Order: sequence, then structure tokens, then C-alpha cells
Amino acid sequence: VVLPTGERLDDLRRLRKDNTGYDLKQLFIGAEGTLGVITAAVLRLVPRPRGRQLAWVGVASPAAALALLALAQAHAGSGLVACELVGETVLGFALAHVPGLRRPLEPPPPWSVLLEVASHRGEDDARATVEALLAEALAAGVARDAVLPSSQAQADALWRIRESLSDAQRPEGLSFKHDIAVPLARIPEFIERADACVQALAPGARIACFGHLGDGNLHYNVSQPAGAPAAAFEPLRGAVAEAVHALALALDGTLSAEHGIGQLKREALAATAPPVALALMRRLKATIDPAGIMNPGKVL
Amino acid sequence: VVLPTGERLDDLRRLRKDNTGYDLKQLFIGAEGTLGVITAAVLRLVPRPRGRQLAWVGVASPAAALALLALAQAHAGSGLVACELVGETVLGFALAHVPGLRRPLEPPPPWSVLLEVASHRGEDDARATVEALLAEALAAGVARDAVLPSSQAQADALWRIRESLSDAQRPEGLSFKHDIAVPLARIPEFIERADACVQALAPGARIACFGHLGDGNLHYNVSQPAGAPAAAFEPLRGAVAEAVHALALALDGTLSAEHGIGQLKREALAATAPPVALALMRRLKATIDPAGIMNPGKVL
Repeated sequence: VVLPTGERLDDLRRLRKDNTGYDLKQLFIGAEGTLGVITAAVLRLVPRPRGRQLAWVGVASPAAALALLALAQAHAGSGLVACELVGETVLGFALAHVPGLRRPLEPPPPWSVLLEVASHRGEDDARATVEALLAEALAAGVARDAVLPSSQAQADALWRIRESLSDAQRPEGLSFKHDIAVPLARIPEFIERADACVQALAPGARIACFGHLGDGNLHYNVSQPAGAPAAAFEPLRGAVAEAVHALALALDGTLSAEHGIGQLKREALAATAPPVALALMRRLKATIDPAGIMNPGKVL
Repeated sequence: VVLPTGERLDDLRRLRKDNTGYDLKQLFIGAEGTLGVITAAVLRLVPRPRGRQLAWVGVASPAAALALLALAQAHAGSGLVACELVGETVLGFALAHVPGLRRPLEPPPPWSVLLEVASHRGEDDARATVEALLAEALAAGVARDAVLPSSQAQADALWRIRESLSDAQRPEGLSFKHDIAVPLARIPEFIERADACVQALAPGARIACFGHLGDGNLHYNVSQPAGAPAAAFEPLRGAVAEAVHALALALDGTLSAEHGIGQLKREALAATAPPVALALMRRLKATIDPAGIMNPGKVL
């Protein structure tokens, strides 16, 4: 890290354990450059898994998706490397606007889960694990339907659907983006209550909900009503964000899971962070960057 | 955390992802109470593994132990939950002084590795994984010999040996303790060069070396020569520690992997930490605890 003084703080140790004073690097991780400029990092490499197996699974509800996640963890342990939730609305946007995508399951389930299991033992083991967990999920009524790709091309096509979701919202008009996380068990409650809040504030708005279910992290985006003018929707941006963020916080969650604060959420952070935490952040900023020259106007 | 002002900083979030400003809790983890008093923590629970299998493996050298670790990781992935290195000298201390221990392998290998594999699939899977990795290690000459406990009582007896090592040094007289870590690949070089340093400074001293190989963390302890008076050994304490710590640092390691700084290593930290890091630690201390009332005299 290059500090505001121009000094270089070197903490590039390749150690799993080091207990020599304060863990300084943690202060700069996620500080968005407001305390110093990170110029190098040490990465730990792990062996590439010998096998991977993907599955696209249809479920009835976010609660069913959570039950599927629990089953996947029980079968795959730390081999579960992806568990992505996809709502039918945003999937519909992608199928309508992104060329070359094909619907994975018919009839369309209300929610889909894209899960991937990696195995250090090989392809057969990864596939057997996914087959066993899906057999149990189908028998228990946790999953409605599932498709397993049997080639890399098919697997790539499923991932392409997931990766198209962000762009697919644009042709549907104005979209208010939210990047929330809540404790895993509260995901279904969050979705149900947020949907009700949004419909009350913006009747006809379409919820484009998808995200990293395994992390409790949802991109809970709100697209304008179909066919209506964007200008009529824009004034609702602040009220919708406030309601979505307030609900996430009320459920012990966060209003920024992975995107950070930047300029856009600076006021929201100031309004919602615990005062003791906010005061300590400001004291750290004043101590390390008293002249305020590091990424000014961001975070705090 | 209770801050020096008496204010309570509440950061008890149960989230895997949260990017809202500085990650304040990291400042207090490992600060040894010098910035505030940690009064509560959130723990993430993971399912208890359905099966476990232990093995005590004899190897010829630290380099062979490292090769065994790599094999174990390839076979067990993240299921490898323990990989402890035990030198013959300290094992001999334990067998001589701790009642009820039995030597696991005859003839005694120069080094032993206690490794444990956990499986979310069950006992059979854990045992099959350990048997497969040992078969490969024995065939490749990485392991000399191995014993697999076949009951919980036998497994407990092997762990009891490992857990006796700290106490077993006491009846052998004065012991200088060091808690170092180096990048994994440098463990063999560290042991070889440290042994030479210690023998040059303290001829006849006995190296009680054991630790958490998977973490690159060794308790590299130095017991006085057998039968000699402790008073003749004590004056060497500082020079031996300095040499051991200097070598660890020269190999990109640390002089405190898990035990922290406290009072004992405060001067060593001040003498060896990079000046920019040390100055930043002191600035943080002065900012958060300007009156110096939190665990005074420790760390800095």
C-alpha cells in the first residue's frame, strides 16, 4: 500500500499465520482507496479441481432454494463452489433480449438455482455427488425439476444465462439496483417483504432478483413497469432504495454486500451506520489521510 | 468491542459479505486488547463431519513431510483437517516423561506426521482416502511407515502424544520457546539452518521441534544440553531467540505465528517490524487509545 505520505507499507507476507501487532492490511481491504493505494497483493493458489459438475434446478420458492443449498452443502461439503439464485422475471428478460440463450427448464419454475460442485477426485465424483443430491432434493419435493449439462458447451450455455442477467435489464427500461445481504435464513423473508414494499411504493414495478444465494447476497433490482415512461419511475428511486435498505438492515443485513459505498451510497452509509462505527471510521480517515487526498468524496 | 471511551462498537453481523466502509472488527482481532476489549463474537457453524480418519506417519525429513502434505492435500482437498509435524527429539521427551504413552512406530523415524482427514460422506470414505494417500506415499518413498488407528481409543492415544509435547519439555530442564512461521516451501531450509545456528551458539542443545506443518508454523524450541546446569544455558536465551527470529524473517517468515507479542516479544517487534508498519501501528494506538489505558505495556 502506498500511504498518503508517499511511504510504502509492505505487508506482502505469504504466511497463513502471523500475529505480530495490528493486522494493517485489513484496514486497506475494502477501504476503496480512501486510506492508501494498494499496489500489490499475495494470492494463495489451490490445486485446480479435477472435476466439476453444474446443475440448473427449478424450485418453487426462495425457501425451497435455501433447502436445496442445505442439501448441496451436506452432499458436497466445501466442494459446493457456486449456488446462484435466479428469479423467473429476470430470467425472462435475459431470454427475451440476449441472443442465443435457451430456456433450461419447461414449464418455467418460479425460481431457479444454478449450482456447481467441484471435486478434487475427478469428473465422475463431481457428477455422482450432484446426481445424489438432486435425487434427494427431487424425492423430498425441494426441487421441482433439474437439468445436468453433459458437455462443456452445455455447461457454458447455462453459465452464460447467469452472466447475462445484469445486461438483460437494460432493454426493459429504468432499473433501480440494490446489492443487499442478509443472514442466509432470512433470505425468504427479505424477498417476500421487499416485494410487498416495492409494490406498495411502485405498483407494477418488476423485481429482477438474482444473486449469490450461498453468500446470502442478492441483487434485488427493481425495473420500471412495462411500457410506462421512465420519467414517471425515476422519482421513486430514493424511496425504493430507502425501503429496500431499511428492510435489509432490519433483518441484520447490509445495504452493500459486494459493490462498496463509493459516492452513490455515501449518504446511505452516513444515515444508517451505527454512530460509534461511523465516528471510528472518520477518526481513522483523519489519522491516516489528514489532508483528505486519497479518493476524496468516496465512502465517508 | 468496548472502546477506551467506554462506547460499545457493535459489529456482530452474521454476513459472509459486507462492504460498508472500513472493516473495523479486523483492527481489534489480534490487537491483544490494546485497542479495546472484545466482549462478543459471531461464530459460523459448519456441519460436523460424518467421518474422520487419523494416521501417524514416519518420514525421513522435513522435506518428506512437506511432500506428504502435498499428497494429502491432493487426495483429501479441504478434508485435510490436521497435519502436525513431530521431531524425534521431542517425541522422545514425551515418551520418557508422560505416563501411558506408547511409541507409534518402530524403528523410530527421524520425523513423524500426524494427519487427519475428515469426510462429510462418512467413516468409510475418510478411511479410504487416508489409505489411498498412504499407499501412494509409501510407494513413492515419501513415507517410511504408517499406523492407522482402528478405534476412537487408539485415535485418542495418538492425539494425546501430540498434545503432551509442550509439557514433556519441562522435565528436560530449561527450554527457549519460539513460535515461528515461514512460507511452507521454506520449512525444510528453516529447520536445517536453524539447527546449525543453534548448535553454533549452544553446543549440545536439543531441538524440540514440532508444530502445525499445514500452516507453516513451527514451535521451534531449544532445550538445554542434557545433564548440564540450567544456569549455564540461561545466558544464551537472547542470542538464540535473535538468531532463530532473524532466520525466520530472512525467509519471509514471522517471529510470532500464533502466540502474539505481549510483553515478551515487544522489543523484538520494535526491532524487526518495518518502520512504516510500526509507525502506523503506533498512530492507530494513539488515535484509538490516546490515554494508553488498554492493556498497557503490551504489543507496542
